[in-house]
Amino acid sequence: MAEGSKVNWRVIMEWQTPNSAVLHKVKRVIYSGKTKYQEVDIVETYDFGLCLVLDGKIQSSSADEKIYHEALVHPAMLTHPKPSRVLIVGGGEGATLREVLKHRTVESAVMVDLDEEVVQVCKKHLPEFHMDSFEDPRVKIIIEDGRKYVERLPDGSIDVTIIDVTDPLEGGPSYLLYTMEFYRLLARKLSDDGLFVTQATSTYYSRNCFAAIYKTVASVFPVARPYHVFVPSYMSEWGFVLGSKAADPMSLAPEEVRHRLEERGIGGLDFYSPEIHHRIFAIPPYLARAFELARPVTDSNPVFMPA
Amino acid sequence: MAEGSKVNWRVIMEWQTPNSAVLHKVKRVIYSGKTKYQEVDIVETYDFGLCLVLDGKIQSSSADEKIYHEALVHPAMLTHPKPSRVLIVGGGEGATLREVLKHRTVESAVMVDLDEEVVQVCKKHLPEFHMDSFEDPRVKIIIEDGRKYVERLPDGSIDVTIIDVTDPLEGGPSYLLYTMEFYRLLARKLSDDGLFVTQATSTYYSRNCFAAIYKTVASVFPVARPYHVFVPSYMSEWGFVLGSKAADPMSLAPEEVRHRLEERGIGGLDFYSPEIHHRIFAIPPYLARAFELARPVTDSNPVFMPA
Amino acid sequence: MAEGSKVNWRVIMEWQTPNSAVLHKVKRVIYSGKTKYQEVDIVETYDFGLCLVLDGKIQSSSADEKIYHEALVHPAMLTHPKPSRVLIVGGGEGATLREVLKHRTVESAVMVDLDEEVVQVCKKHLPEFHMDSFEDPRVKIIIEDGRKYVERLPDGSIDVTIIDVTDPLEGGPSYLLYTMEFYRLLARKLSDDGLFVTQATSTYYSRNCFAAIYKTVASVFPVARPYHVFVPSYMSEWGFVLGSKAADPMSLAPEEVRHRLEERGIGGLDFYSPEIHHRIFAIPPYLARAFELARPVTDSNPVFMPA
Amino acid sequence: MAEGSKVNWRVIMEWQTPNSAVLHKVKRVIYSGKTKYQEVDIVETYDFGLCLVLDGKIQSSSADEKIYHEALVHPAMLTHPKPSRVLIVGGGEGATLREVLKHRTVESAVMVDLDEEVVQVCKKHLPEFHMDSFEDPRVKIIIEDGRKYVERLPDGSIDVTIIDVTDPLEGGPSYLLYTMEFYRLLARKLSDDGLFVTQATSTYYSRNCFAAIYKTVASVFPVARPYHVFVPSYMSEWGFVLGSKAADPMSLAPEEVRHRLEERGIGGLDFYSPEIHHRIFAIPPYLARAFELARPVTDSNPVFMPA
Repeated sequence: MAEGSKVNWRVIMEWQTPNSAVLHKVKRVIYSGKTKYQEVDIVETYDFGLCLVLDGKIQSSSADEKIYHEALVHPAMLTHPKPSRVLIVGGGEGATLREVLKHRTVESAVMVDLDEEVVQVCKKHLPEFHMDSFEDPRVKIIIEDGRKYVERLPDGSIDVTIIDVTDPLEGGPSYLLYTMEFYRLLARKLSDDGLFVTQATSTYYSRNCFAAIYKTVASVFPVARPYHVFVPSYMSEWGFVLGSKAADPMSLAPEEVRHRLEERGIGGLDFYSPEIHHRIFAIPPYLARAFELARPVTDSNPVFMPA
Repeated sequence: MAEGSKVNWRVIMEWQTPNSAVLHKVKRVIYSGKTKYQEVDIVETYDFGLCLVLDGKIQSSSADEKIYHEALVHPAMLTHPKPSRVLIVGGGEGATLREVLKHRTVESAVMVDLDEEVVQVCKKHLPEFHMDSFEDPRVKIIIEDGRKYVERLPDGSIDVTIIDVTDPLEGGPSYLLYTMEFYRLLARKLSDDGLFVTQATSTYYSRNCFAAIYKTVASVFPVARPYHVFVPSYMSEWGFVLGSKAADPMSLAPEEVRHRLEERGIGGLDFYSPEIHHRIFAIPPYLARAFELARPVTDSNPVFMPA
Repeated sequence: MAEGSKVNWRVIMEWQTPNSAVLHKVKRVIYSGKTKYQEVDIVETYDFGLCLVLDGKIQSSSADEKIYHEALVHPAMLTHPKPSRVLIVGGGEGATLREVLKHRTVESAVMVDLDEEVVQVCKKHLPEFHMDSFEDPRVKIIIEDGRKYVERLPDGSIDVTIIDVTDPLEGGPSYLLYTMEFYRLLARKLSDDGLFVTQATSTYYSRNCFAAIYKTVASVFPVARPYHVFVPSYMSEWGFVLGSKAADPMSLAPEEVRHRLEERGIGGLDFYSPEIHHRIFAIPPYLARAFELARPVTDSNPVFMPA
Repeated sequence: MAEGSKVNWRVIMEWQTPNSAVLHKVKRVIYSGKTKYQEVDIVETYDFGLCLVLDGKIQSSSADEKIYHEALVHPAMLTHPKPSRVLIVGGGEGATLREVLKHRTVESAVMVDLDEEVVQVCKKHLPEFHMDSFEDPRVKIIIEDGRKYVERLPDGSIDVTIIDVTDPLEGGPSYLLYTMEFYRLLARKLSDDGLFVTQATSTYYSRNCFAAIYKTVASVFPVARPYHVFVPSYMSEWGFVLGSKAADPMSLAPEEVRHRLEERGIGGLDFYSPEIHHRIFAIPPYLARAFELARPVTDSNPVFMPA
């Protein structure tokens, strides 16, 4: 057992299901603690660089967080003709905020996260993720339950909402941010041309969960578009669902995407591009079939991962 | 440790890199042996069903082999206006053959595999993969080194070639099927409107390998198109490269794809569709950048996974 | 990932507790199947050679089965002045039988095992474990539940009984062979100078289970002696309990052990020796304390591993 | 994946050999860092409590450190009729010191450890291991290479030396503390009735290493006694070798051990007792055979684990 093994004993063991696990060797433990809501680790892995791990699930890694955050933010932001007032629910590490702020149209970006300690830990240990976005004068950070905060908002006051919270786990803090009641609430708070996007779990390990989220969004919003993107550190293609009161992301021509990117001064992206915008909405038959079988979920009949 | 653990001790531990591994719990070992060339296991896993495992790498699983095999076969076959003479190099489990034979235009399908025992083991234990394709009168199975067989072919005698062999590993049996010399040979054997496709490893764990294969194909064929598809049991998006002497898959309109599918009597697919045909060729900036850095590889300067 | 990894993906993952697991790399799967009672694997591991695995637990390995079987058999057999009629409950792989037959005094050895298929599989694949002991004219193999068989025996008809069954798991086939009722039954069937021994699980991972077995034996037999031996493939020191109606193993002088071994023609052992006979009965304070806290168990209030 | 998995992703993966690994789930990471010499982690595991981990190997755990430290210290200390001047090489966590100080005869205890940071980290985070022994007026802590320090000692100035350093790994800091040259040096520094003891690695995973250490001690000291004790967190029985210029631990009657323990005011031990003193020196035939094959090792021809 030479050098290789000498530095390879710290391992993140992430169970995708009760029958499949991934082992990531860890080079360095930067932070490890427990907040009121969850366990938080910041580690440096060999294959994915710096990782934020919440309750044992890698949330972001420096190797591919741009894929995830660009895929989460830009399709929605570019589908809206002029997103000015943006709400982020979750997004503790600040990278969603970073992508949102790239859009010059943004005048106010409110980020509501439940867990102040996670925000503080990320602020301190993940500067390359947030790029000091927390200090941008357009930004307001609120520590509160996302749903409760949304309830208090004036109707029609938000252009784009981005839901960047942990997966809907039984007993976890997030599953009530994936229900029909919440989406109805959100729809009311959005302006007439408002839209929102949510992460929607794995397209393979929790396909039925992804499908249920899509069906739930579709039961509330006139335009509902599922899309999917491979995120390496999740070891899976990841689902997202965009719900819109007016504009349809699939009707946006590549030239218009390109135009809006230029207009808003956005360049140098890692994942998102006008061509990619369209690619991600194409749904293969095996997912289309899962969508057919799915039903909307409610507060009293929620969906949990894995499903 | 209740029932759960009682049946969960047989594990396939697949190292993606020296620092990341995947554990798949195995329900049943159906076959486990060693051929002249490699170790072969056929196991039933909990999450991916029946799996063919060669030298410790899952090659196909009943849960998602259709994604892989449809993604490998149909873009090339449909880009060719009338594929009649098809050559498959590798493809031991018979599922590539199964997809090829769906095209009514095919008059002859030759499958050349190095390892007779793998073919026999798959024939016996994986009937749902090959669907008796080996018995189709259009089919000829040759047990030989793929490159040697191609050398003996008359020039211009093949319409579509599909390279479905194991990854280019140092010391493994396949790396000489990923070099400029081999692609030049192949080009000579293809008809004037001929084309070929090859699997091209992971877009994440061996991105540089994928990029090198693309650059190598591009150095030989006038049309070279990399594409990528998420294959769940590989825990990664997977790369493919299509090299063509004439037709460009990206110029094929969805309606034409649809028309050809109908004309050839192909329906009920799991993954491939006219919309998907275009999705898979969109390349995100992070891959485009890897392509820029890559160089073609040769027999004397090959590329190995992981790279 | 060089040669090392190429042949190292088949793994036995044995959970000692829900929080500690051992991974053994497997070179070869020799047999893998399911009987009426349990899952059976015979594999060749790198570190322990051939292993019999029942329901995911290594039962015997060619690297150290002599330690286990000698430790199980000889202390009891040598404590008895002239063991003639021996009963083995369990012991499917035939190695306990092999050790018993080494004692020239033995006129009859009956082995009762529940699972005929396990016996057949071991007979075929583990010749070095049983050494053709099944063919010895003194031997009788009975396929039956051990306790039921013991019930039918005439009183006082056995000199030494050896209990070599799987751990007392909830829902498993063996836990009723570790209770006061069973030990009382056994005591009746033993001759006046009869004695018995049972494996008694790990001294660390199931210390309370070991202690409960000891206390239960002590509640039935005038002489009850726990002992413990490190068995490498169990990754733990292993407990045994000897219950005797007359002779005390701790009163047997090393010279007498040596004399009996010679008289019975036993030599060339791997683990057991006159010096070792005494070593194994020494109990450290931490085990003595566990014994103080333990209580005898009954059919209606049994003990299960881990405990 | 309910609560169980929620808190189970941090894992220590300890390779015993390239083909066997142990996974310990970690509840809490208390400290994780890198000193000039090694990587240091202090973690709380589910099964072994607080653990000091150096370069990925568990050195001590709160669950069983008393077994290891009592087994290391007391056989040597009690074999010496009146140990007054004691030297500890290594022993960073302070538990060896704690056991040494229990002997009222001790007037001076010098602990020499290479790695000041490890000592500081243990002092801060493992109070139950050192029990403030560092503050005892008889104690002196020296930060220096153990061998260099011993070289400077006056001849005949030490009664008992205890070598409590990491395993002899190639490239590691400790292998020159296991050679003939070092033992000769040590012999010179010991008083005429002096003795020493060293940890001597696993009796299974590095049996030849244990045997070589024994042979090396035997080539220098008139009395050399190997002994072995099961240490649960090492997943193995552990070897030790005692080298003595006069007294033989195997000649010490249990009554004399008891008498000395009382005289020195030592009680309430977890593992060591007069009966255990003798148990641990009994060597089974399989170890005796390994001893026969082993040869002494020197600085220029050292032994490394695993061997």
